[in-house]
Amino acid sequence: MKIDFLTLFPDMFTGVMESSIMKKAQEKNAFQYRTFDFRSFATNKHNKVDDYPYGGGAGMVLMPQPIFDCVDSIKEETTDNPRVILMCPQGETFTQKKAEELSEEDHLIFICGHYEGYDERIREHLVTDEISIGDFVLTGGELGAMVVTDSIVRLLPEVLGNKASAQEDSFSTGLLEHPHYTRPADYKGMQVPESLRSGNHQKIADWRKKESLKRTKERRPDLLENYPLSEKEKEWLSEE
Amino acid sequence: MKIDFLTLFPDMFTGVMESSIMKKAQEKNAFQYRTFDFRSFATNKHNKVDDYPYGGGAGMVLMPQPIFDCVDSIKEETTDNPRVILMCPQGETFTQKKAEELSEEDHLIFICGHYEGYDERIREHLVTDEISIGDFVLTGGELGAMVVTDSIVRLLPEVLGNKASAQEDSFSTGLLEHPHYTRPADYKGMQVPESLRSGNHQKIADWRKKESLKRTKERRPDLLENYPLSEKEKEWLSEE
Repeated sequence: MKIDFLTLFPDMFTGVMESSIMKKAQEKNAFQYRTFDFRSFATNKHNKVDDYPYGGGAGMVLMPQPIFDCVDSIKEETTDNPRVILMCPQGETFTQKKAEELSEEDHLIFICGHYEGYDERIREHLVTDEISIGDFVLTGGELGAMVVTDSIVRLLPEVLGNKASAQEDSFSTGLLEHPHYTRPADYKGMQVPESLRSGNHQKIADWRKKESLKRTKERRPDLLENYPLSEKEKEWLSEE
Repeated sequence: MKIDFLTLFPDMFTGVMESSIMKKAQEKNAFQYRTFDFRSFATNKHNKVDDYPYGGGAGMVLMPQPIFDCVDSIKEETTDNPRVILMCPQGETFTQKKAEELSEEDHLIFICGHYEGYDERIREHLVTDEISIGDFVLTGGELGAMVVTDSIVRLLPEVLGNKASAQEDSFSTGLLEHPHYTRPADYKGMQVPESLRSGNHQKIADWRKKESLKRTKERRPDLLENYPLSEKEKEWLSEE
């Protein structure tokens, strides 16, 4: 997979993209990334990328020309058909399902604005997807693009050593994860539950499923609405 | 504000924390941040921070001791009462309201796990808040902690030069933002709407409000449920 980031702050990406799983995934050739400072595509005298908004008001607006030309130059050098993703608060809320969808692509281009609006013509005529990572305001699209990238990269074949890790995660099963415990069994008086230490596989599996259901009911009842409960699971939930 | 990150990958933070608004905010003394590699707090021979889960299964679990001791050492050196925030998929979904709440604090400690579960005793006995940035799976808590930090820092007094920028953003008004346009009026045949070029302030304000309402209705009808519509706004929406 090829991933390109259009950004005025390419240095923001280094630490995240060169650490841990993201670094290993590149070493395994699962993906390569590039950053493009779209300021270098500006054709005006002072390499300006923004201008005042039509109609007045606070803040500046990113001009269409540098971003269109930067994306066009990337498209010209390739025969694949990249998805062009605009990171913005008005976009579709990002979910695990979208991560799975995007992980099937060959080439993604992320447009990351910074504390400014985008000229609407970028949205209307250049992008294929608009993504928001949630209902909060950030200073730019860079962190969001890295979040989306991280969630996609970990789904690529060969990236996570243990495939079970990816499958058992919250949101993949449709429920929140059950609690985890490791040694010591007693840490300053705080105990590991007896069921987990029983060695009885069925008892452990039941405890985990019950805790997972309880936690989901308590914290994210909305997730249960789409979860097909078995008769046994319904009983467990009604015990509470 | 003081912000501390517990992480096994401190290098992930550099690029983001030393760029743009985050950098400027530190120069203005709006906040300072530190990273703590909690591996250095491990008291076992090989500085291990994780161990196998009780009850078996894939993946490792972060042990209580290094994380408890790291947080305790931070608390011991200060008289303030830090919020201790666990980044995890089971947490409360992060919103702008939570960003506003946290921006009032003096000291935040973020615990960032990495592709592993936390021992449940950390969740039960050490943390004050559990935050998830959305319904998707990431390889670690670091990106989420940076997302939360970015959204908080931009709300701190004096950080954003133009206060209007913060207030007019999506989610602050309860509606998605209206479209923006800047020069040129004609870019390769794509035009700026006539209303915005009219110079008539009332016409411009009305156009923006209408577009903002239309976009919210189309993309995020859930936001309209909590928005107190005026009679005029109801009319505009029913025109569609």
